[in-house]
Amino acid sequence: MRGLWLENQKLTWRDNLPQPTPAPGEVLVEVVRAGICNTDLELLRGYYPYCGVPGHEFVGIVRSPDHPWAGKRVVGDINAACGQCDFCRQGVPSHCRDRTVLGIVQRSGAFAEYLTLPSVNLHRLPPDLDTDAATFIEPLAAALEILAQVHISPRHRVLVVGDGKLGQLVAQVLALTGCDLQVVGRHSTKLGHLERLGLKVAVVQPSEPEPYESRSFDVAVDCTGHPSGFAQGLGALRPRGTLVLKSTYAGRLALDASAVVVDEITLVGSRCGPFAPAIALLSQGKIQVSHLIQHRYPLSQGLAAFAQAQQRGSLKVLLTPDIP
Amino acid sequence: MRGLWLENQKLTWRDNLPQPTPAPGEVLVEVVRAGICNTDLELLRGYYPYCGVPGHEFVGIVRSPDHPWAGKRVVGDINAACGQCDFCRQGVPSHCRDRTVLGIVQRSGAFAEYLTLPSVNLHRLPPDLDTDAATFIEPLAAALEILAQVHISPRHRVLVVGDGKLGQLVAQVLALTGCDLQVVGRHSTKLGHLERLGLKVAVVQPSEPEPYESRSFDVAVDCTGHPSGFAQGLGALRPRGTLVLKSTYAGRLALDASAVVVDEITLVGSRCGPFAPAIALLSQGKIQVSHLIQHRYPLSQGLAAFAQAQQRGSLKVLLTPDIP
Repeated sequence: MRGLWLENQKLTWRDNLPQPTPAPGEVLVEVVRAGICNTDLELLRGYYPYCGVPGHEFVGIVRSPDHPWAGKRVVGDINAACGQCDFCRQGVPSHCRDRTVLGIVQRSGAFAEYLTLPSVNLHRLPPDLDTDAATFIEPLAAALEILAQVHISPRHRVLVVGDGKLGQLVAQVLALTGCDLQVVGRHSTKLGHLERLGLKVAVVQPSEPEPYESRSFDVAVDCTGHPSGFAQGLGALRPRGTLVLKSTYAGRLALDASAVVVDEITLVGSRCGPFAPAIALLSQGKIQVSHLIQHRYPLSQGLAAFAQAQQRGSLKVLLTPDIP
Repeated sequence: MRGLWLENQKLTWRDNLPQPTPAPGEVLVEVVRAGICNTDLELLRGYYPYCGVPGHEFVGIVRSPDHPWAGKRVVGDINAACGQCDFCRQGVPSHCRDRTVLGIVQRSGAFAEYLTLPSVNLHRLPPDLDTDAATFIEPLAAALEILAQVHISPRHRVLVVGDGKLGQLVAQVLALTGCDLQVVGRHSTKLGHLERLGLKVAVVQPSEPEPYESRSFDVAVDCTGHPSGFAQGLGALRPRGTLVLKSTYAGRLALDASAVVVDEITLVGSRCGPFAPAIALLSQGKIQVSHLIQHRYPLSQGLAAFAQAQQRGSLKVLLTPDIP
């Protein structure tokens, strides 16, 4: 099959990749749409030493002929679990100790014509849900994970740092709680999307004072993937506040541990989340994603798509099947 | 009055310090015992730019003649709150935005003949509680703060990293919960104290493998005050585990933020805690502290006491009044 190949942090186009073979309990899925995520870009920067087809945000069609959903559109949880370890037995397969992760850890990903996933990972799409929009289910689920970890209610002041792809979803998800929400970022155009959705936004520039009172937020979420966003979130928190870390990226953060201790700050790492509510929210039109789609490229132009996604300030770049 | 003076990270002996004058609502306290804490040593290293009399672990006698506890032994919460700010109104005076902190932030401390504190900060000691032991109420309260922040029960595996003064108290406090507790440190003598109290302990050496399964603990508490202890605690945690940071120290920590995100780790900064249960636990003999007292020096030999406390592996050094 054809697709992109990542090896030693270098991405290439291949037209002779072996089509993945479903293991017992797994399903063959034809990829009809895939999204480039910042994690994919971080893999190119060496965040994790993955070798294989990258890509984990996708919509596909089941091509295993005996599967009850054969020919139907699906999305899929990206963590393929062993079902045996302590975490699987505790009902937390996303932390399975022996998991493979689609396009990230030892499992061929979505930037190719086909992928395989365990049948239990798949979620069928409602007929009315647009395929492009459904590509956002995986990152939307990741945004929803915050609400599974941190209690956020209308009495909380919450700051989202970052107006990029993830920040746009996180902001909309947190707004659902009715909390007193502020979104800050560097791009007035991106913030304008959220402002039109009724969210309170403000442009921040590195050299200028923050457009909010420091040490005043109950919760801050860093969606920037940069140490500066981490520092900004931390500085915005009141004592006993909670900083959610949403970005995976290569490199280390310098942490003022004493400030964390003195102010009794809680830092919460947050990764993959629940697909079912993400599908429901998109179907109900409670989360807007169409404005986030900036470019579409056929799979065969995947390298150009990556070049586009790496442009500063780029929003979502989607890969579509090549027109036959 | 006489006492120690900290200025520009340099500690000196003074015999002409002004005796502090109680403000309205405050009480004059004669210090009869004081303990040197690692935070005091960190102040000498520049952890916080305090100028004044250091010292915050103390037992004193009320010397304001009109106070109902005049002549009685007391200990005191070290955070003197404004009573007006949002945190004071929320019942969290330890995070008062305008607080002074005894011997740390703009309030003359306990390494002198007298100190002042708001009357509401004082706790009277039970007659049967030994004065030396009562010096440990403040750090014991700080250890108890962990239980106010993190739910720990018999089904949790918990690691305490560090066998020093704070680690010894934290370990005993966490053992009260019935959790599956392990304490690791570098000093077999110190660990021996805890082992004799029935705790599970193990010596760790930097070059040797850990004496426990990595990624297996639900909660880890870093009591070392060193980046190595932080890293050790983090490495011991299972996915979704919680690392409690108990030490204030100068300098910054390098944090692998991606590991925190991927494993959805929670980091919790933890500082001062509740005095009342600390007093009760010491009175009931549920926490042992006598083995932690290594040296006693009269106040006038305070510089020698600090030199002793700075010795590697030193346990608690107490200051006593000079014999008249």
